[in-house]
Amino acid sequence: MNEQWLISRITPLAGKRRELVCGIGDDCAVYRAPGTREDLVFTTDMLIEDVHFRMSTHSPEEIGHKALARGLSDIAAMGAEPKFCLLSIALSTAASKKWIDGFYRGMLKLAARTGTVLAGGDLSHALEICCDITVSGAVPRNRALLRSTAKPGDLIYVSGPLGAAAVALQAGKVHLPQPRLELGVQLRGKASAAMDLSDGLSTDLQRLCVASGVSAALNEDIPLAAGATIEQALHGGEDYELLFTAPAKKKAPAGCTMVGEIIEGKPGALRYKGKPLRARGYDHFKKS
Amino acid sequence: MNEQWLISRITPLAGKRRELVCGIGDDCAVYRAPGTREDLVFTTDMLIEDVHFRMSTHSPEEIGHKALARGLSDIAAMGAEPKFCLLSIALSTAASKKWIDGFYRGMLKLAARTGTVLAGGDLSHALEICCDITVSGAVPRNRALLRSTAKPGDLIYVSGPLGAAAVALQAGKVHLPQPRLELGVQLRGKASAAMDLSDGLSTDLQRLCVASGVSAALNEDIPLAAGATIEQALHGGEDYELLFTAPAKKKAPAGCTMVGEIIEGKPGALRYKGKPLRARGYDHFKKS
Repeated sequence: MNEQWLISRITPLAGKRRELVCGIGDDCAVYRAPGTREDLVFTTDMLIEDVHFRMSTHSPEEIGHKALARGLSDIAAMGAEPKFCLLSIALSTAASKKWIDGFYRGMLKLAARTGTVLAGGDLSHALEICCDITVSGAVPRNRALLRSTAKPGDLIYVSGPLGAAAVALQAGKVHLPQPRLELGVQLRGKASAAMDLSDGLSTDLQRLCVASGVSAALNEDIPLAAGATIEQALHGGEDYELLFTAPAKKKAPAGCTMVGEIIEGKPGALRYKGKPLRARGYDHFKKS
Repeated sequence: MNEQWLISRITPLAGKRRELVCGIGDDCAVYRAPGTREDLVFTTDMLIEDVHFRMSTHSPEEIGHKALARGLSDIAAMGAEPKFCLLSIALSTAASKKWIDGFYRGMLKLAARTGTVLAGGDLSHALEICCDITVSGAVPRNRALLRSTAKPGDLIYVSGPLGAAAVALQAGKVHLPQPRLELGVQLRGKASAAMDLSDGLSTDLQRLCVASGVSAALNEDIPLAAGATIEQALHGGEDYELLFTAPAKKKAPAGCTMVGEIIEGKPGALRYKGKPLRARGYDHFKKS
C-alpha cells in the first residue's frame, strides 16, 4: 500500500459538483462560488508527534509555526493569498499549559504575518499530539496555478537551494519552513504549473509530471543548501520551496533556479545525468 | 484547564478580516466572499481512536459515517447545505486495506447522500487512528443561524428525543448520528438561534446562553430516547440533534419539542425544576 494506491481508489468515488473546479490531486481544492471574481482554495495538513516533530527537539513555538507553514506553502503553490485557517488539535498529557501557549504563539505569529485569521477549530485528546490545519486562500478567478498543466518544452524551476531540511534533520536541528507566498503571487500568469516541495524533488516532480502527462529531464546541477549532498537535494523532504514550470520565453523571478526541462514521454518518468531517476522521497506508507 | 479556558485565551489573538463575518465560537465559521449572494460556512471535527470510537466495537463503515456526520451536524446547525469536505487521516498499523476500504465506504455513502463532495485531504500515520474532517456548506447571505442571537422570551426546542447515544454507549452498542440537514434549512428565518447537541443538552445550552448573554429555564419534561434516563437526556453527549430557539409566535417544524424558555439573567445560568442546573456534559480536558 502507498499514498498513490489509496488516492487512486478514492478519487473515482469522491463525487462531483460544478462549483468545485479542482478536487483531489492538487496542492489545494479550488471552489468557485457563483457570482464571484475570486476562486477560493483549500488545503489541509496534519502535523503529528514523532512523525513530523519530536517534543524533545522542537520547541512548541516551532511546532506551531510548522503546523501552519505546511498549509501556507500549499496556498503559495496555487498562487493564492491566505485568508483564514481552522485548527484541530488533539493534546496529550505531555502538553502543559506552557506548551500550549507556546504552540499557539508560534502559530499565530506566522498567521498574523501572513494575514491568516484563525477562524475556528476543534479540541480533543490523544496518546500523542496530533494537529490538522485547514487553510483557505483566494486567487483571481481562473488564475490558480495547477500541477497538471506543464507542457513539453517548459523549463523547470525551484525557488531556492534544496536539502536544507534534510541537513537540519541529520544534525538534530530544526528547519523552519518559510512559505513562499509573495513568489506564488508573482508566478500568476507566468508559471505554466506549480506545486510545493514537501516530499522531495524526485517524488514531487514525478507527481507534477504524472498530473500533466509528461516526463522531465533534470540538469546535472541542482542548487544545494549549505552542507547538502546532491542525494539530499534530490530526495530530501520538507524544504517547502516552490517547484514550477514556465515557457522558455518567460523570465523567472529573482532567486529562482532553472533545474531542468519538461519533455514528452511516459507520464512521471524522470531523467538525471542521462539515466532514469527513481522517486525516492517521502511516502507515509512505504516501508523502506 | 478546560476547553473554555483555551478558547478564551486564543480568541483575542485570532485576528480579524472583513470577509470573516463569524469566527471562533459558533458551530461554523462564516465567510462572505465579495460579490456573492451566498455565505460559506466551515467546520472541522476530529475523530480519534479510543476517544470517539473503538476498533473492537465500531465497524470501519460506522467510523467513516461518524467522522463525516459530526461535521454535517454543524452545517445543519447553521441552516446551511453541505458542499464539500476535506479528510485528513492518520492510519495506524491496525488499519488494514479492508479496514480502509470500509472506512471510506461508510464516509462516502453519507457524502453522496448529502451532496458533499470529497475535495481533498491529507494522509499520515500515527500510533492510533486519528482523523479530522473539514466540511464546507453554503447558506443565503446573512441567513446563517448563530448561537449568539437568542433573546429572552424565545422558546427552546430540540429536534428529537435525547440520550440515545448515552443509552447505546452503556449497552456497548453504536449510535450512528443522522445530521438534521433538512431541518436546518427549514429553520432559516424561523429560529432565532441554533446549534447542534454534541456534548449534552446542559453543556450545549449553557454555551448557547453564554454566547447570547442570556439564561434558560428548562421544562420538567424533556423528550427521552428509548431507555434513556433524565440524567442521560440532560447530560449525555453525541446525540447530534439540533438545539434551537424561536420567538413564541413562530410554529416549530414537526418532530421538534419545546423544552424550555430563554430568560434574562446571568449569561449561561440554567434552571431545571426550579433549581440551578450545572452543565455536566463532555469536556475533553476536564478530569471527572
